[in-house]
Amino acid sequence: MELFEKHEERLKRARAAIRIREYWSAHAESPRAYGDEAPQLGESAFQDRIGRPFALNQPESGWGSGGESSPYGSDLGVTYPVASLEQLITAAETALATWGTASVEDRTGVCLEILERLGENVFEMAHAVMQTTGQPFLMAFQSGGPQALDRGLEAVAHTYAVLDRIPGDTKRWEKPQGRRDSLRIDKQWRVRPRGIAVSIAGSTLPTLNSYPGIFASLVAGNPVIVKPHPATILPLAIFVETARMVLKEAGHDPNTVLLAVDTAEAPIARNLVMSRGVGVVDYTGGSDFGEWLEHNVHHARVFTAKSAVNSVVLDSATDLKAVIRELAVSLTMYSGQMGTSPQNVFIPASGIEVDGTPASFGEVAAGLTEAIDRLLADAQRAGDILGAIKGPATRDTIAAASSYGDVLLESRQILHPSFPESLVLTPVIVKVGADDRHVFMKEMFGPVIYVIATADTDESLDLAGDTAAEVGALNWLVYTTNEDVESRAIDAAIAAGVSVFFNLPGGLYVNEPAAFSDFHGTGANPAGNSSFTDTSFVADRFRVVGVNVSAT
Amino acid sequence: MELFEKHEERLKRARAAIRIREYWSAHAESPRAYGDEAPQLGESAFQDRIGRPFALNQPESGWGSGGESSPYGSDLGVTYPVASLEQLITAAETALATWGTASVEDRTGVCLEILERLGENVFEMAHAVMQTTGQPFLMAFQSGGPQALDRGLEAVAHTYAVLDRIPGDTKRWEKPQGRRDSLRIDKQWRVRPRGIAVSIAGSTLPTLNSYPGIFASLVAGNPVIVKPHPATILPLAIFVETARMVLKEAGHDPNTVLLAVDTAEAPIARNLVMSRGVGVVDYTGGSDFGEWLEHNVHHARVFTAKSAVNSVVLDSATDLKAVIRELAVSLTMYSGQMGTSPQNVFIPASGIEVDGTPASFGEVAAGLTEAIDRLLADAQRAGDILGAIKGPATRDTIAAASSYGDVLLESRQILHPSFPESLVLTPVIVKVGADDRHVFMKEMFGPVIYVIATADTDESLDLAGDTAAEVGALNWLVYTTNEDVESRAIDAAIAAGVSVFFNLPGGLYVNEPAAFSDFHGTGANPAGNSSFTDTSFVADRFRVVGVNVSAT
Repeated sequence: MELFEKHEERLKRARAAIRIREYWSAHAESPRAYGDEAPQLGESAFQDRIGRPFALNQPESGWGSGGESSPYGSDLGVTYPVASLEQLITAAETALATWGTASVEDRTGVCLEILERLGENVFEMAHAVMQTTGQPFLMAFQSGGPQALDRGLEAVAHTYAVLDRIPGDTKRWEKPQGRRDSLRIDKQWRVRPRGIAVSIAGSTLPTLNSYPGIFASLVAGNPVIVKPHPATILPLAIFVETARMVLKEAGHDPNTVLLAVDTAEAPIARNLVMSRGVGVVDYTGGSDFGEWLEHNVHHARVFTAKSAVNSVVLDSATDLKAVIRELAVSLTMYSGQMGTSPQNVFIPASGIEVDGTPASFGEVAAGLTEAIDRLLADAQRAGDILGAIKGPATRDTIAAASSYGDVLLESRQILHPSFPESLVLTPVIVKVGADDRHVFMKEMFGPVIYVIATADTDESLDLAGDTAAEVGALNWLVYTTNEDVESRAIDAAIAAGVSVFFNLPGGLYVNEPAAFSDFHGTGANPAGNSSFTDTSFVADRFRVVGVNVSAT
Repeated sequence: MELFEKHEERLKRARAAIRIREYWSAHAESPRAYGDEAPQLGESAFQDRIGRPFALNQPESGWGSGGESSPYGSDLGVTYPVASLEQLITAAETALATWGTASVEDRTGVCLEILERLGENVFEMAHAVMQTTGQPFLMAFQSGGPQALDRGLEAVAHTYAVLDRIPGDTKRWEKPQGRRDSLRIDKQWRVRPRGIAVSIAGSTLPTLNSYPGIFASLVAGNPVIVKPHPATILPLAIFVETARMVLKEAGHDPNTVLLAVDTAEAPIARNLVMSRGVGVVDYTGGSDFGEWLEHNVHHARVFTAKSAVNSVVLDSATDLKAVIRELAVSLTMYSGQMGTSPQNVFIPASGIEVDGTPASFGEVAAGLTEAIDRLLADAQRAGDILGAIKGPATRDTIAAASSYGDVLLESRQILHPSFPESLVLTPVIVKVGADDRHVFMKEMFGPVIYVIATADTDESLDLAGDTAAEVGALNWLVYTTNEDVESRAIDAAIAAGVSVFFNLPGGLYVNEPAAFSDFHGTGANPAGNSSFTDTSFVADRFRVVGVNVSAT
């Protein structure tokens, strides 16, 4: 309760924010906001992790490094405690007994304290995210720290808000019986966690995409077994360490949060989610395993965020250069390795109208190609935008994409001035036709951009809609000056279950999260069955049991 | 909007009620509250349905009577329009386009008006429920009318409350950029229904168990195809008629609510839920088909209420006669044909303490047996309590139960004074042992009571808990004067996901619903995956799509 009171104002503000949904953030996005010493302290803390065992004082039967390596070329050499499934489940079951019966306020206070501690250590997390995912530093700082923490706080506020609708005290229920005495019952509604929560994280945005589910589960009373992607463990190990420290200090079982380390060769996710007592599964990753979870895990509530193929629809603009400047960044940021990255750019074959005059398809495509080429001409700047390539299969993906159509811009390898060992690749831009559906209706994870010539904007919207329906999509970025087109695009986006952005200006990118305002994912197409963070994402992480005592 | 304003006060009151959770009801449970003429008008209206086609003016390709017959022996002879799946889906798809884009207030107003109209016609519904389900009249009146309407209103209020948390208007999102101009986006969050909702109803409580899902789906924007149990169609046909009338009057597509009639020989539920565009499925019925839905319907959100085996745990009492009086009614009401009916009575073999003195197992069991026998001695009174037997297999169920242990009380057939053609059966009471788990951990739908001798109350609670975990349970009724036992029973109930009632007095029965206060079902054991009505029951019936327009 002490921690709840400590953070009550922040919780109130966050609860207001998710209702108002205007801009609000609890964690500064600018590294400068954290004082002069923080950057150096954070980097040192990160360096101290390298080449060492990462002690968590949790159950273990050995040590391993998963399959972690840095896309920037450094040898991380961190080893983690590796626990058997039985050890993990037994420890989580024990934690459930006390965490699951702690008060909602107690659990919420602990979660808010965890967020605060993580917020004091954003630079170490930034380096950990950067070095494990290949994100450029500023993005790693923002996505790994403030943006992830905002999403975590949003989930805490949302879960608390839903729980707060259920009376926490005893209520007298008194039913009139005409002239006879009323019937009287003293009622309580006891919140019951669903069980052990398993959070299966992805390799490229480990904290941002996992915090919502983890924090929602914790507030709801479910202990969480965090299973990072075997190639990206360190960021979530730091989270687990912080969470366990706060839990312990607050007198709770630190095994309420556990780390599960596996390898690509011997993955444990299937057996883990099928283990006894598992009641919630959160998943970020490819569609194949996500669908397996959706179809096979009936004993637990499964929340998925899977593959997405996002579309840009160019219809008309007042300032083509501004549009292209914006697109050049959105399309190249972190080499397309985010679920929110656009992949397909639909342009009418007859061109688009720019401030009343026509611009041909060729002009627009060439403008975009040149802008991207120019943006990435300088190696340092290219590294700051592209980051490094995480997935080893990315070269194959680029090669495949290049074979499907006319290559407008070849992918180049860039020598990163600061990380010469890293793999930095500029995107390939490939022109394909509107009938090449089998080509562009497929997630090409990494720096692949398809430019697709369509009959008109209606066909562009149809193809974007079919893509969303068949393989999933998180967002569309539409440029139009035509109100009819805007209206049709809105209808199409709602039908497709895709968030739509119109005429985004420079400086704001469709790839970026906006916690407390946007819903990330709609749950209405194959990109996932849930949304960060709507009511349904949190409300099914607990159940309510009525306790009724006669007072007659 | 007119209808929303008309009913706004009632909605406000209902929203307050689901937060406060003290006693509240919007629909009077006493038949006398509806005026002197209502009973006769209702009965005439019911009589006018008999032997006639039930016109709904909805798509149809023929007429049929399902497999409807009255447990009270009368020949109903009502025929209903039978539509093909293609007709139903096409009509619902068309309705979705307009109903799904109507405002939340508009939809909510229509739902509240439907409830009001149904509330003006409770006597016709009472006869329809009585004659199709076999419920005794007073119960049919209450469960079919006021209690069902309260549950419907509760679902409307809950769905509206969740939707009301999402801004309905455009919000300006303005992100500061230090010295540069802020980034500005005009944001909307558009509620998107999940698709066509299918409501599959049970045979014994058609309105009470279906209204929550139907009304929640309607408020969320999903048109609803109502598929009654083929043996119990009339009550939901009356609902569909009323809903379509209100929809039409309010300028909406009446096909927003459709009736789907099938037969036991050619059931359509599987193909119906697998049809294109289905986004929500609500189900009440046996566990086999419920589990099939949970395991096979991945494209829609499935809410189930399946079989339940409820327990009575006798530990100690101050007034054994009062306890037995209460139990005699709970155990016999509507011949155990409700999901909430108790089936298993656990009594320590060493007996229980009554007001400080011991009462042997034999005394308690004999007391209960005699009380039930006496309660049902008079044929008229027996009929008023037991109602008529709905399921034709009930005699087999009774025979099977009788063979499993010592029969303490034989089942008798009673000649109902008013309905000599009806099948009225008193319950069989069978004593079985604590190791006869395969016997009592199984739903015996109908008038079967097992009395189980246990080592002690801890074993009683363990067995009740195992029963809930293995086959599902909705409620426990525990009699104890011992605070330690109460506390252990609460812990056991929470672990088992079962609502628990202690020392219920005469006049209040564990079988009865208490909308706005109780949660019916916890979703935490095999009795079902959902609860009437918690937030998760309503929050996943729609999705939200962000529409973001640059304002820079």
